[in-house]
Amino acid sequence: MKALIFEGPGKKSLAQRPKPAILESGDAIVRIVKTTICGTDLHILKGDVTTCQPGRLLGHEGVGVVDQVGGGVTAFNAGDRVLISCISSCGKCDFCRRGMYSHCRTGGWILGNKIDGTQAEYVRTPHADTSLHHLPDGVDEEALVMLSDILPTGFECGVLNGKISPGSAVAIVGAGPVGLATLLTAQFYSPAEIIMIDLDDKRLAIARQFGATRTVNSADGKAVEKVRALTGGEGVDAAIEAVGVPETFKLCTDIVAPGGVVANAGVHGVKVDLHLERLWSQNISITTRLVDTVSTPMLLKTVVSHRIEPKLLITHRFKLDEIMDAYDIFSRAAETGALKVIIET
Amino acid sequence: MKALIFEGPGKKSLAQRPKPAILESGDAIVRIVKTTICGTDLHILKGDVTTCQPGRLLGHEGVGVVDQVGGGVTAFNAGDRVLISCISSCGKCDFCRRGMYSHCRTGGWILGNKIDGTQAEYVRTPHADTSLHHLPDGVDEEALVMLSDILPTGFECGVLNGKISPGSAVAIVGAGPVGLATLLTAQFYSPAEIIMIDLDDKRLAIARQFGATRTVNSADGKAVEKVRALTGGEGVDAAIEAVGVPETFKLCTDIVAPGGVVANAGVHGVKVDLHLERLWSQNISITTRLVDTVSTPMLLKTVVSHRIEPKLLITHRFKLDEIMDAYDIFSRAAETGALKVIIET
Repeated sequence: MKALIFEGPGKKSLAQRPKPAILESGDAIVRIVKTTICGTDLHILKGDVTTCQPGRLLGHEGVGVVDQVGGGVTAFNAGDRVLISCISSCGKCDFCRRGMYSHCRTGGWILGNKIDGTQAEYVRTPHADTSLHHLPDGVDEEALVMLSDILPTGFECGVLNGKISPGSAVAIVGAGPVGLATLLTAQFYSPAEIIMIDLDDKRLAIARQFGATRTVNSADGKAVEKVRALTGGEGVDAAIEAVGVPETFKLCTDIVAPGGVVANAGVHGVKVDLHLERLWSQNISITTRLVDTVSTPMLLKTVVSHRIEPKLLITHRFKLDEIMDAYDIFSRAAETGALKVIIET
Repeated sequence: MKALIFEGPGKKSLAQRPKPAILESGDAIVRIVKTTICGTDLHILKGDVTTCQPGRLLGHEGVGVVDQVGGGVTAFNAGDRVLISCISSCGKCDFCRRGMYSHCRTGGWILGNKIDGTQAEYVRTPHADTSLHHLPDGVDEEALVMLSDILPTGFECGVLNGKISPGSAVAIVGAGPVGLATLLTAQFYSPAEIIMIDLDDKRLAIARQFGATRTVNSADGKAVEKVRALTGGEGVDAAIEAVGVPETFKLCTDIVAPGGVVANAGVHGVKVDLHLERLWSQNISITTRLVDTVSTPMLLKTVVSHRIEPKLLITHRFKLDEIMDAYDIFSRAAETGALKVIIET
């Protein structure tokens, strides 16, 4: 089968690999129909993710059709249309039993990281009963690819951790796919203001279409003053970090009001400064989270009911044969305007 | 009257000052019966607290008897025995109405900071109706001095923010007064383990008497390994920072388990490093808080019912005339074994 291979920092190839086989009784083999590329895949290609070794097939998102199942799988059968969660969860370990699937003792984020992933014609999914979801009928498969990772990440790491509530003031720093997924799902809870902050006016225009009530271009270094001006000098109840660099994290701690939350959704590669000499008395919370995907069944319902339209995040479409071009377009997002790209097998 | 005066960094004096007068209709004048010295007073004397100007009468804790009240005070009368909260709260502003008294628009921590404090024969307490508490009968006044600041600080900043729950594993870093107040009140919620961490074996011995199930002397730099060994390699559900320096904050982030909380109770003078390159995926929360004293009425009940004995925190007793000696003993705590000192007028 064809697959996208991580060949070491800075290197990748589209090559032929053997079709995966069942290794454990809980496995399923899924024929991929549509997949996508994540910002985390670019982190791997930069060499930032040490758990991902050269030779790995990348990708942790996708929808497909079950091809075979292991003897222990009871909730899925060959032919079932499925959504693949980016998080594999056994459902049985201590972390899984408290809903923290991200830290599953034999799962977590392993697809396209510690085991081969979804940017291929077929993928082996461990713990299939508790890591796949049946696709609802009548919903565009493209939209559902957004539910493998990006929508639950924005919702769980940003909206839930940020305790977004009716009437509150929210700022989202970073109008990339995670920030926009946060913006879409934040509206479930009717905040009074959602202020979107980014360096790119094109992305801010999209954010306004997606429901941002205010936008702030932070390129002039005056984002703190601007957010304070928009919030009567008070700052925001929730500041959501959706970039993953020290500057944007600091911005969040500078704009959060006393009693507020800084919810980190970004993937960070270096430490940050935390100004506890000021913040110790500010009654704030800072949260971190690797998405658990506990909210995926709920998010599926919101897509079926058209409460959100995750398809809006999709800007480009490619065939698997063109995946090298897809990576090129996706990695030059500032220039190409790419948000999420769909790869069809 | 006699009062302890902050004369600028490194300088203080016991001197005569005029007795305070009612300035606002919500004020009370309280004759101090017993007061104490806080670690924060030492911060002021180091010059760390820029809001506190030379000439200020220090102190934000105490019990006393109401001497006079302003025309707007309805809940207290002259002669009432009262506990003075370290936090003054108007009860009417937006922060007060959500229980965040620490950020009261016209109050907060002002006593012995922005206005004259309690290390004197008399003090003016603004917003008396919502900042004083009637003393329960039959309880030693000394014990109740601990409820002005130290007990609610340990309880609100450490125990409540740390979400201490039955069966959980807790570590408290710093066995000083705030750490020990956290230790006493953590036991309300029946954690499985309370691991006390300090550099001083004498303080750790006290911690064992106060209910710590384990103690770790961190002087050898191996606290992380020791806590991991005590928790089956997992780390703790709540790590409570009760020192206020970068090293102890980092220790807390190193010993917290995935899904856990780092609850900061320490007063910090400099920024800290936050290792988001590791922590972004660990599903943790970090909380900060200036005590709100919303829990004071509840804590009073726990003292009346002997559920906790805050008097255990008191190691030394002085007359107001001896307050310079009291500061000396308190500031050399490692040597003198001082925890809380009582100053009687």
